[in-house]
Amino acid sequence: MVLDTMKTRRTIRQYTDQEIPDPLLNELLEIAARASNTGNMQLYSVVVTREQEKKKQLAPAHFNQPMATQAPVVLTFCADANRFVKWAKQRNAEPGFDNFQTFIAAIIDSMLFAQTFCVAAEEKGMGICYLGTTTYHADQIIEILQLPQLVVPITTITLGYPANQPEQPERLPLEAILHHETYQDYTENSIEKLYQAKEELEANIQYVKENNKETLAQVFTDIRYTKKNNEYFSDVFLEVLKKQGFL
Amino acid sequence: MVLDTMKTRRTIRQYTDQEIPDPLLNELLEIAARASNTGNMQLYSVVVTREQEKKKQLAPAHFNQPMATQAPVVLTFCADANRFVKWAKQRNAEPGFDNFQTFIAAIIDSMLFAQTFCVAAEEKGMGICYLGTTTYHADQIIEILQLPQLVVPITTITLGYPANQPEQPERLPLEAILHHETYQDYTENSIEKLYQAKEELEANIQYVKENNKETLAQVFTDIRYTKKNNEYFSDVFLEVLKKQGFL
Repeated sequence: MVLDTMKTRRTIRQYTDQEIPDPLLNELLEIAARASNTGNMQLYSVVVTREQEKKKQLAPAHFNQPMATQAPVVLTFCADANRFVKWAKQRNAEPGFDNFQTFIAAIIDSMLFAQTFCVAAEEKGMGICYLGTTTYHADQIIEILQLPQLVVPITTITLGYPANQPEQPERLPLEAILHHETYQDYTENSIEKLYQAKEELEANIQYVKENNKETLAQVFTDIRYTKKNNEYFSDVFLEVLKKQGFL
Repeated sequence: MVLDTMKTRRTIRQYTDQEIPDPLLNELLEIAARASNTGNMQLYSVVVTREQEKKKQLAPAHFNQPMATQAPVVLTFCADANRFVKWAKQRNAEPGFDNFQTFIAAIIDSMLFAQTFCVAAEEKGMGICYLGTTTYHADQIIEILQLPQLVVPITTITLGYPANQPEQPERLPLEAILHHETYQDYTENSIEKLYQAKEELEANIQYVKENNKETLAQVFTDIRYTKKNNEYFSDVFLEVLKKQGFL
């Protein structure tokens, strides 16, 4: 039953040697293409990496995280207005798709496609891991995968059969993310309450210690997602959007 | 079997009167929260609209499409760094999250959450429709839903039990969206081949006629997604990102 799979899922970062044959991969991609998309323009593409040499080329863009080379298949999901624009021009139509709103539609389409793929893959017993590094080093990925104008990599998935079964990570309580009718902004008290269970988790207490920090939040702001890096990679990605023709 | 539901799904724009009780809605949202997200920061929120008055307020932002007021539940999914930043500040941490890269992480998180929600809802027999108008009129939606700094609406879903069973729309053949190892750019010939079935569909031929156009592509470029509108709504949305603190 699918909802059970969805309820108990966890990200998988280690994979067995079991291959994922093309017919199975294609079946999952066909299912993913059934997802909603903007005006049925399907403003996305996916680049499948199976060759070890290509995985190694991509690895530095993903901070050499081991799953990027260890997974049997790596998929790079791209916002893509190139195909639609080429078609339109061939059909006596004048597309005005070189702008930010089209990019936003294309990132939405790409994520609908990518996540539907992941749910289907997990339902078939595979495991996935999203690599958030894709938009950090989009410039490098564009070069390696030879992405043309109006194509920008959005996210990457490593895919394979699980070699382990990690603990399911915690999530904030539902009331933390859910608002009724209007957004109820957080108060000091509500923040205390909503983050309490997360902060009291033994694994998170250990995580703070290992990183020599006072609070869990500091691990994120001082180490994992620093202001300096966020700002640097913002500039890189905005430059990529300009270069690829979306800004 | 979930993959069958995913394979045969179609967007639903008309709904029966059957209500969606809170426990069921909450179950689906809990499942959606199991989706991957950036560093487990959960950079998203959802605002649930059930009150008819609120739906009517939102309707113009969605070009008064009937499903926006006819659906029993409307959900607005938002990129949200506000909650995380408030928590960090309360924990002696200095977040640097007021930038474009954080917005991109948050839009990705929002879409993973939204699409997982949709797959689960469809598996439970409900139908959904994405409203792409959300980023066009993000400024209006921010005001109506009272979204604070570092919160931006990304997409909206209308949800209910299907009142009809429309035809499943066509998709491009898989080879149109799939690239192996590197991106194989499209040629005049490949575009002809990939779009042929779509253009020969009786429904699409009719659609071109109804719109008094020569080609299907022109319906998109001249009527549905014009250069003028795309550019206008690009400016609006970039302004929203600045105002909400992401640019």
